[in-house]
Amino acid sequence: MNFSSDNTAPVAPEILEAIVRVNEGFAPGYGADEWTSAVERRFSEIFEREVAVFLVPTGTAANALALAHVTPPWGVVLCHADSHIATDECGAPEFFGAGLKLVGLAGDGGKIAPDTLAAALKGYGEHRPHQMVASALSITQASEAGTVYRLDEIAALCAIAHDRSLAVHMDGARFANAVAALGCRPADVTWRAGVDILSFGGTKNGCFGAEAVVVFDKARAASFLYRRQRAGHTFSKMRFLSAQLDAYVNKGLWLELARHSNAMMRRLANGLARVPDIELHHMPRANLAFVNFPNAIWRALEKAGFTFYHWGNAHWHTARLVTAFSTDPADVDRFVAAARAASSGRKPKRPMAFLPRF
Amino acid sequence: MNFSSDNTAPVAPEILEAIVRVNEGFAPGYGADEWTSAVERRFSEIFEREVAVFLVPTGTAANALALAHVTPPWGVVLCHADSHIATDECGAPEFFGAGLKLVGLAGDGGKIAPDTLAAALKGYGEHRPHQMVASALSITQASEAGTVYRLDEIAALCAIAHDRSLAVHMDGARFANAVAALGCRPADVTWRAGVDILSFGGTKNGCFGAEAVVVFDKARAASFLYRRQRAGHTFSKMRFLSAQLDAYVNKGLWLELARHSNAMMRRLANGLARVPDIELHHMPRANLAFVNFPNAIWRALEKAGFTFYHWGNAHWHTARLVTAFSTDPADVDRFVAAARAASSGRKPKRPMAFLPRF
Amino acid sequence: MNFSSDNTAPVAPEILEAIVRVNEGFAPGYGADEWTSAVERRFSEIFEREVAVFLVPTGTAANALALAHVTPPWGVVLCHADSHIATDECGAPEFFGAGLKLVGLAGDGGKIAPDTLAAALKGYGEHRPHQMVASALSITQASEAGTVYRLDEIAALCAIAHDRSLAVHMDGARFANAVAALGCRPADVTWRAGVDILSFGGTKNGCFGAEAVVVFDKARAASFLYRRQRAGHTFSKMRFLSAQLDAYVNKGLWLELARHSNAMMRRLANGLARVPDIELHHMPRANLAFVNFPNAIWRALEKAGFTFYHWGNAHWHTARLVTAFSTDPADVDRFVAAARAASSGRKPKRPMAFLPRF
Amino acid sequence: MNFSSDNTAPVAPEILEAIVRVNEGFAPGYGADEWTSAVERRFSEIFEREVAVFLVPTGTAANALALAHVTPPWGVVLCHADSHIATDECGAPEFFGAGLKLVGLAGDGGKIAPDTLAAALKGYGEHRPHQMVASALSITQASEAGTVYRLDEIAALCAIAHDRSLAVHMDGARFANAVAALGCRPADVTWRAGVDILSFGGTKNGCFGAEAVVVFDKARAASFLYRRQRAGHTFSKMRFLSAQLDAYVNKGLWLELARHSNAMMRRLANGLARVPDIELHHMPRANLAFVNFPNAIWRALEKAGFTFYHWGNAHWHTARLVTAFSTDPADVDRFVAAARAASSGRKPKRPMAFLPRF
Repeated sequence: MNFSSDNTAPVAPEILEAIVRVNEGFAPGYGADEWTSAVERRFSEIFEREVAVFLVPTGTAANALALAHVTPPWGVVLCHADSHIATDECGAPEFFGAGLKLVGLAGDGGKIAPDTLAAALKGYGEHRPHQMVASALSITQASEAGTVYRLDEIAALCAIAHDRSLAVHMDGARFANAVAALGCRPADVTWRAGVDILSFGGTKNGCFGAEAVVVFDKARAASFLYRRQRAGHTFSKMRFLSAQLDAYVNKGLWLELARHSNAMMRRLANGLARVPDIELHHMPRANLAFVNFPNAIWRALEKAGFTFYHWGNAHWHTARLVTAFSTDPADVDRFVAAARAASSGRKPKRPMAFLPRF
Repeated sequence: MNFSSDNTAPVAPEILEAIVRVNEGFAPGYGADEWTSAVERRFSEIFEREVAVFLVPTGTAANALALAHVTPPWGVVLCHADSHIATDECGAPEFFGAGLKLVGLAGDGGKIAPDTLAAALKGYGEHRPHQMVASALSITQASEAGTVYRLDEIAALCAIAHDRSLAVHMDGARFANAVAALGCRPADVTWRAGVDILSFGGTKNGCFGAEAVVVFDKARAASFLYRRQRAGHTFSKMRFLSAQLDAYVNKGLWLELARHSNAMMRRLANGLARVPDIELHHMPRANLAFVNFPNAIWRALEKAGFTFYHWGNAHWHTARLVTAFSTDPADVDRFVAAARAASSGRKPKRPMAFLPRF
Repeated sequence: MNFSSDNTAPVAPEILEAIVRVNEGFAPGYGADEWTSAVERRFSEIFEREVAVFLVPTGTAANALALAHVTPPWGVVLCHADSHIATDECGAPEFFGAGLKLVGLAGDGGKIAPDTLAAALKGYGEHRPHQMVASALSITQASEAGTVYRLDEIAALCAIAHDRSLAVHMDGARFANAVAALGCRPADVTWRAGVDILSFGGTKNGCFGAEAVVVFDKARAASFLYRRQRAGHTFSKMRFLSAQLDAYVNKGLWLELARHSNAMMRRLANGLARVPDIELHHMPRANLAFVNFPNAIWRALEKAGFTFYHWGNAHWHTARLVTAFSTDPADVDRFVAAARAASSGRKPKRPMAFLPRF
Repeated sequence: MNFSSDNTAPVAPEILEAIVRVNEGFAPGYGADEWTSAVERRFSEIFEREVAVFLVPTGTAANALALAHVTPPWGVVLCHADSHIATDECGAPEFFGAGLKLVGLAGDGGKIAPDTLAAALKGYGEHRPHQMVASALSITQASEAGTVYRLDEIAALCAIAHDRSLAVHMDGARFANAVAALGCRPADVTWRAGVDILSFGGTKNGCFGAEAVVVFDKARAASFLYRRQRAGHTFSKMRFLSAQLDAYVNKGLWLELARHSNAMMRRLANGLARVPDIELHHMPRANLAFVNFPNAIWRALEKAGFTFYHWGNAHWHTARLVTAFSTDPADVDRFVAAARAASSGRKPKRPMAFLPRF
């Protein structure tokens, strides 16, 4: 009964079958095979324009390569202070970007507000060359807090960014969950809203280890092949990455898987919202949520065998709960039941503060 | 009928089965799972000592991380001029190593002779800090030319290197082929001979995309986790890398696969050696060879549907021929027959020079 | 009448004379000359222990080389959010440090409080290897706000840092001003309090372009020569750097110059503090201060020909005022008189907020 | 009696006077002063077109910044195997260039022949993205061997380079000596022949520590300011760099100084050429030469107090001899006389091989 991360989930059966199916005889290496060409075509269909696609095995690779591609070494990437690139990638953007700088912005629910971006940008540009140059904005869709940017929010952010010549990167490690939640076209939430480069995630939603960097303006993609190669992220047996992503986007599987994991989180959140001494930080739209509860609930859940990340003190705990394409609704219901059983039945006296994660 | 690269081969059935088998339910991410622990234990058994093992998806990642780990940014890595790190990784060692320098040494059959190393090292150390510091030796076993270092050759190279405080890295992208060819213990050809850090290859010999960096002195491995993480080479669903390598080394599968591919190359080389106007650069001990032949033979082979890398001029061609764990002996025999049929039946008038690869 | 920066001041006559004096005939290059040996000995005397000293031409070079020397690429340097390394060096620490990260801490008057450091460090260490590693603390003495750390404050910060295995760097671009203000021994405010590596500034206090990185534990200095060389910061005609610093520290010139510039700032601050509608952010102890005043005063000062950095809105201005070793007391008095003449004679109705610098 | 390096010479009196003269009162920092504007205008006059000029304190900084500016991290810089950038800068180009690669070409007398360049380039471009991309050519004028490229040689090299989209960098650490030797216009030997970016040296020819990176196409210079800043190579008191270079190029001083040092080398070389058992590697046109002589001569010179770099074995020595703007003709004559006195009077039996430098 694992609610730790969508990374702990297995591979979706359809994707595993595709890997098995592609394992026939010899095939050209490094992406010169037919499956890789096929997946490249599919992405152009999905995004309703000719795009450049580069497959890589991990989300950190996708993000770091994408950011380095659009930011000079003396550039600043503005991002949410709690974004994955800022807190979980051990400095991959700084490494790939030859010493670029991430500047973390505050924002409710893991989202950057347009006003916050505009205010932050005021600080740039008058003190050159002493100060680094604001060069890119990175937003996470769905966010690390389980929320989702609306189309108009993305458009507003992109307009501000482009007005100042910043490129816009979208960390789409959970892109499927966002698209499923919004019920929108992938093009609308990306390039039509102004996104320049996308980390399109597969691993957290049923792949084995497969992500794609999508460059919407093909003319800007020229040197990406070299970046990927010298980072050791070009698979020689590329067909096995391609097969995963091909199966993933085939017949809408990616959205189907995401809809399930989103639904499981909604079911979980709705259940927990009715437990008096549990507080959700935000009502999740994607497949993860942060919640506060008294230690009694935490101990009961742990005893019942539920696993998840948590941070606490003597009285309260904050937990990050994540569902996956493979989450069993029965497990969700057991979780809610266990929490309710351990509840004091009363609202906590004072509103709970967000607990620091580390 | 593909003789292009062992990278074009499929995944070995036993390894694919292991991937399928490990795909059960949830498992901790980033290597905290039981399969990863198991594979770490197995490597300690194979190498007859406690070793630190770090799984990565590609050989370039393994090499570049390993070299950066043992070489400061102002360090020089001495390697063969035709080594993969020098010619095929688009500068990955320089990137991961923050600007280290590779210095290519000449050497017959892709191997560095101890005297060559000793002579090269004479040039270092007297012009500091203007000159970079000789910091590591990298040797490839089996070599990029299909030859194999003998144990005493490795020991001699390592003695010279250690005497000058250089670390020794072994690029073992085809380590299995070398061990199979030598019939030696893995420990004998590595740390017992003086090797400090090994890129242990799986991808070219039946894996999907799985390599291991083996650090023989665990005390020197401390910061490797950070290097791998910030390079985007830590798999979140690590069990799928671990399962591959676990199956790969289980019950000697790796050596069994390598023995087959070596045998196929021997069969091919023996056949070609009897064709008068074909010249082998070296008699291969591992699974690849370079051969020269007149253009008539090249055209015949191409027409017959054989694929391989080749470089040529108006008269002659050099081909790199590679066999794999899955190479069919019938294909080998067909290759030899096609070559023989197109042969002029005479030795070429002048000895053929080695043709430049690019 | 320049109050913009101590960087706009000329070279002190004693230092210029030393440059002229050293310009006799040929001398060994790259620091093998007698003057460089002499300056190295002098630093060991000043700091009352054997230290390693590396001369470089700029403060940014000193800081970036020093931080890269004590921080791995996956390391975090904790520093004040308004520190020079974070805001004015265009990412030099990130560049020299191969992608390290600066994390800016808040702190009144440009100083980091021990509690703030302790709280920030709580966030590190439990999320490895996803999170970067807290590796160094950098403090600026005198601070960018014109304040000075007391010895006990430095000792407290260093104790916290060392307890977590962080190295401590001191940006001493205005080290002379701090030592002069405190009237302490240079050793007391550095290594005896726990500082590991110091950027010892000369340029802002009368040199032409000469700084020294002082490594207090000589055993930790081994590779610094390579870092400096490959950064292009080794002067071939090193005697001209050495002569500057030799003259600078000879017979206490450095402290004499600093005492003058500190006194000029005190005189300025005391004068301005008596103007009702001028607000000093902090009472300066070194040679710079930030002040707020109504636009009427700003316009009057500008008209009178005073130059300084300033940021403002429709009503108020914040100015950074800096004095130098060569500041004329008559200019200070003229500045105060001009401000007073333009004053409204009343305290401003609401307390002025600190204006954002850019 | 120092023939070690032009770096061991003092500062030319005119340049020292300019430094003293500029040391008047306050001046804007970081290049916003009038002297810096003046020197920028002067360079445009010297090169007969609008150029972008960036002053830096060392030749290594100039070279590394220039190469990084025109080469991507996955780029190869082709250069002479014995060039300063390849052998003496401790990897500065690799560091500033984020892991670019230098590939050293052979060439008589420190010069690359057009045919050699053309042959080397044949190896590039067909193996992308595995292979790094040939991106720049760097030539040294005057060369490290004391020879000088003719205008037609430079034009031929540039034509080949541009045909393959390589940028051309000229390391002009001894640019003055080359221009003086050729008696040509500075524009003819640089941009008119196809050079894109020049390291214009001052330090070896009478400056204290001042070089200029000249970008001939101003449109390509945009981001150079950031590169220089984050490398710590922007002087805050820039006027002292500018004053040096202003005096250096004023009224042809640079060429006058260079003519003297060239003449001193010619006098030395002509003298040595008449000593039977002394062999000049090349007849120098600039201010340095490599010569072989028997150990008896070496011992005699050393005993007489002459200093120079030398490398030897039991029988022979190779010496690098360098003259400077300040070399005394009487010292040259003494050198020749001392060599002649120690000569055996006979030609050596076998031709002397070039001795390895380190």
